[in-house]
Amino acid sequence: MGIVLGANQYGKAESRVVRIYRDTERHEIRDLNVSTAIRGDFAAAHITGDQAHVLPTDTQKNTAFAFAKEHGIRSPEEYAVALGGRLLEATPAATGVLVRVEEYPWDRVAVGQYEHDHTFVRRGGEVRTVEVDVTADGLRIVSGLTDLVVLKSTGSEFKGFLRDEYTTLPDADDRILATSLTARWRSAHDRPDRVADVAWDEEHHTVRALLLEAFAGTYSHALQETLFAMGRLVLERMPMVEEISFAAPNKHHFLVDLASFGLDNPGEVFVAADRPYGLIEATVTRDPEK
Amino acid sequence: MGIVLGANQYGKAESRVVRIYRDTERHEIRDLNVSTAIRGDFAAAHITGDQAHVLPTDTQKNTAFAFAKEHGIRSPEEYAVALGGRLLEATPAATGVLVRVEEYPWDRVAVGQYEHDHTFVRRGGEVRTVEVDVTADGLRIVSGLTDLVVLKSTGSEFKGFLRDEYTTLPDADDRILATSLTARWRSAHDRPDRVADVAWDEEHHTVRALLLEAFAGTYSHALQETLFAMGRLVLERMPMVEEISFAAPNKHHFLVDLASFGLDNPGEVFVAADRPYGLIEATVTRDPEK
Amino acid sequence: MGIVLGANQYGKAESRVVRIYRDTERHEIRDLNVSTAIRGDFAAAHITGDQAHVLPTDTQKNTAFAFAKEHGIRSPEEYAVALGGRLLEATPAATGVLVRVEEYPWDRVAVGQYEHDHTFVRRGGEVRTVEVDVTADGLRIVSGLTDLVVLKSTGSEFKGFLRDEYTTLPDADDRILATSLTARWRSAHDRPDRVADVAWDEEHHTVRALLLEAFAGTYSHALQETLFAMGRLVLERMPMVEEISFAAPNKHHFLVDLASFGLDNPGEVFVAADRPYGLIEATVTRDPEK
Amino acid sequence: MGIVLGANQYGKAESRVVRIYRDTERHEIRDLNVSTAIRGDFAAAHITGDQAHVLPTDTQKNTAFAFAKEHGIRSPEEYAVALGGRLLEATPAATGVLVRVEEYPWDRVAVGQYEHDHTFVRRGGEVRTVEVDVTADGLRIVSGLTDLVVLKSTGSEFKGFLRDEYTTLPDADDRILATSLTARWRSAHDRPDRVADVAWDEEHHTVRALLLEAFAGTYSHALQETLFAMGRLVLERMPMVEEISFAAPNKHHFLVDLASFGLDNPGEVFVAADRPYGLIEATVTRDPEK
Repeated sequence: MGIVLGANQYGKAESRVVRIYRDTERHEIRDLNVSTAIRGDFAAAHITGDQAHVLPTDTQKNTAFAFAKEHGIRSPEEYAVALGGRLLEATPAATGVLVRVEEYPWDRVAVGQYEHDHTFVRRGGEVRTVEVDVTADGLRIVSGLTDLVVLKSTGSEFKGFLRDEYTTLPDADDRILATSLTARWRSAHDRPDRVADVAWDEEHHTVRALLLEAFAGTYSHALQETLFAMGRLVLERMPMVEEISFAAPNKHHFLVDLASFGLDNPGEVFVAADRPYGLIEATVTRDPEK
Repeated sequence: MGIVLGANQYGKAESRVVRIYRDTERHEIRDLNVSTAIRGDFAAAHITGDQAHVLPTDTQKNTAFAFAKEHGIRSPEEYAVALGGRLLEATPAATGVLVRVEEYPWDRVAVGQYEHDHTFVRRGGEVRTVEVDVTADGLRIVSGLTDLVVLKSTGSEFKGFLRDEYTTLPDADDRILATSLTARWRSAHDRPDRVADVAWDEEHHTVRALLLEAFAGTYSHALQETLFAMGRLVLERMPMVEEISFAAPNKHHFLVDLASFGLDNPGEVFVAADRPYGLIEATVTRDPEK
Repeated sequence: MGIVLGANQYGKAESRVVRIYRDTERHEIRDLNVSTAIRGDFAAAHITGDQAHVLPTDTQKNTAFAFAKEHGIRSPEEYAVALGGRLLEATPAATGVLVRVEEYPWDRVAVGQYEHDHTFVRRGGEVRTVEVDVTADGLRIVSGLTDLVVLKSTGSEFKGFLRDEYTTLPDADDRILATSLTARWRSAHDRPDRVADVAWDEEHHTVRALLLEAFAGTYSHALQETLFAMGRLVLERMPMVEEISFAAPNKHHFLVDLASFGLDNPGEVFVAADRPYGLIEATVTRDPEK
Repeated sequence: MGIVLGANQYGKAESRVVRIYRDTERHEIRDLNVSTAIRGDFAAAHITGDQAHVLPTDTQKNTAFAFAKEHGIRSPEEYAVALGGRLLEATPAATGVLVRVEEYPWDRVAVGQYEHDHTFVRRGGEVRTVEVDVTADGLRIVSGLTDLVVLKSTGSEFKGFLRDEYTTLPDADDRILATSLTARWRSAHDRPDRVADVAWDEEHHTVRALLLEAFAGTYSHALQETLFAMGRLVLERMPMVEEISFAAPNKHHFLVDLASFGLDNPGEVFVAADRPYGLIEATVTRDPEK
């Protein structure tokens, strides 16, 4: 029985590409963390050490920076598609290229009533994500966000669950529900010749708003139900979203027992716990037969 | 020559206290990370192991949670003063108590044009800090913020510096200036009986706005000069600030050389570097004789 | 076109389970980070909010702690199999349970020539990992390690690679090769009734030693080649390993140009870079037909 | 009342300097994280933006790398003294230079019975630290270590402590004591002309061994008592240590209540908690009058 090479890919991770648009006095900034990975027939590199078909990860990095100028960064989606296409083309042994981008948002600094032309403050909070897979057969574009931390101080319960001999959790009628949301949605805009026509920034903004709206507006019987409601609203309103997936840690806030100190605690004082945490993962998708 | 106990303190670090105000439909949230440290005559605990004068760190934690209800959290400053005072009083051997608080800001979720009553999204970005030192002689209150990440895409130079045989840095006429600011300002509001009268949240908001205004509005010959300008503006406008200190990593953004690829790069594409980084620390203070 | 629930799972992540064996004066310690995830038919929980079939994540956590006593932790593999089996059994709606365990290694403190009975120092360095998937059809056990940081100060080159117009990297005849290795190997010991008979700790120790031996002993034309050699050696010597996968960041160490300071630098002074980094992923497997 | 510049310093933080000694087949490695900070009369840089007296942080970084070759790294202490002396000399406006070094330890990879000549595995665990302050008047050298994680599974109690109305903690007769130790000790070897004669690596090794010996060998009535015993042993045995300071988080391991599941738990199953944690800080010093 032989020993052989299985699945493999290689690339440059976390190139920190910052692009300033300074065509007018009012600068724009795009601040990205770019990772690329090439897969294909690279058996020689692994087995005999022959690098003749390997486009170095250093070159992948150079291309990421060069494309920030040559192609520009109108949106992380469009930039990732261009970069992935280039790397596929430049590497004859490649069968696919995966480009992952994180974008860190910046706001303009307000001075009095005005927004400053070239001074920015990093917004913090969630990070925008894009993952593009490019092959000869086509594109797969998954937009997303991560670390969107949201909390409801009421309107959440958890009860009627399955019990066994290790169950000690009481029913909760009114609890804090909090999570640090990761969401990833696959786009129907996957024709290479149409990518440039999509208003990616606007779409991202709209999906984010719908996610928040559903989180706020849904009475929660469980985080699972809340996530499904969030996904459903996005799919209902955004025909260009094919499918959306969530990973949502249940960031537990435990009510503190203040009775020993003669104090009542009707949902007012909580301890925010680090670990362990519940972790809920779910995909909401379209079923053409329903 | 004997071996003796020197300076010492002990306490509970990083109690994650979350307080919901739910007196009306419109909830409010204060989300704190609280650390306390007691100092005084605790030689017996160290040398003979006798704990009779030691208020346990567990009790310090309990007090932090109980005070979130009993005293409330109108501002982190006022809460920290109350908590420190209590621990000093409860521990006869104590000569001083240090309370440090970080506050994580939350915004209301907007649904359409309305802000939701009980759904919040964590703002991200900078953290508000408070450090209160309580002794029998009085209070020392240092407000602050950390991780305020700001960037100017032009209006910054660095030239005319000292050179020696290890200097290779060329003069820079137009560079990106970016930092993750930590600022701490000592308050003149240090009378225990007046702490409750101060509008701490407003003061914090004003200092933050002044820091951003000076950062944006100052042409920078060096990060040192920018920090001094920021501190000066705060001291000029805020008589209740005695002194302000900064720690500011110079988050280097290096211009990428794209010439090898036949591309010009007039201040457009940068690599954001992690390490090493410049680190500038400075205090701006008042001199009664000037 | 309907909107439906897709793939989903839920569980409790990162329960920090510490087990002390104190049957004799000479204590033993096992220090684990345990995550469980249940998948199956949980559509009701997502769509209508009905939790009747949901074993709470809190119960999963309780079970993890109870099993540290009831079943014990002879090895992370055996413990994970038992825990996963229990959760599958306790949850009629479940079709599979995934248990992931990280183990943090501790050494005994040496006092003079003796090892102390009940005092330990955490070894640091790599973390041992186990991932067990339990279904009605059987087991899948993947052992592993992560964060094993290794470095060769010579015996590594990278040259003869593909070049395009974005390539600036020169050939390297003698470079530092360093990585923080993640390795995961699937075990042939997947019969539930035999899991208790396997010497999992010894197998782990042997695989780790083989990985280090191959890393040290292989002249490297590229990190890819080194990884393949490491995987091949493990598969050759360990018939019970079916397949092994690697994720290996190429932790770049760049030679510092000291010529400006009149200093030669023949492979002596390097800067260790953080980001970006090369990232090589590869699987080495068995082919029954070769 | 004027606004003036107070205390200030500036420098380059976290230069990752790796030095390979390859004079023989058997290579040696020193892996450092170097930070420098210059203080003195830099008012012009802050107030008018004039950089004429400012040695750039980029030059400080260059010097750190050049000195790894020119002066070499026999020990982090000696290297730091040389680097600090150089920066003080190169900067006429400077009155003092602070050099901080972290050293990451590496072990040789063992292949069978032999240690490999040029392949290393990072030890993990604690980091060695050095802080050197250089002025015209002399040196201050503080050696140390951080992140030394130690645990006793018995031989530790905590009882007889002060109680107030917020105290709920019961006495503990037998608990786990664990900490992630930071220790810093000031050396009497502070004559610049003698620094090269000191066996710094050996001294570090000996202090570390004494710390572990005292931690293991002391029955603990409280972490405070254990720390004092550790400091006392170091001062008794090492006349060249003037003073030693500790910062020790009490990493709580709480006994899990398994009674609900019909299980006994006599000190066997614990949950390792993240936050909050006790934090004990203490200095042990010499008193010439005792």
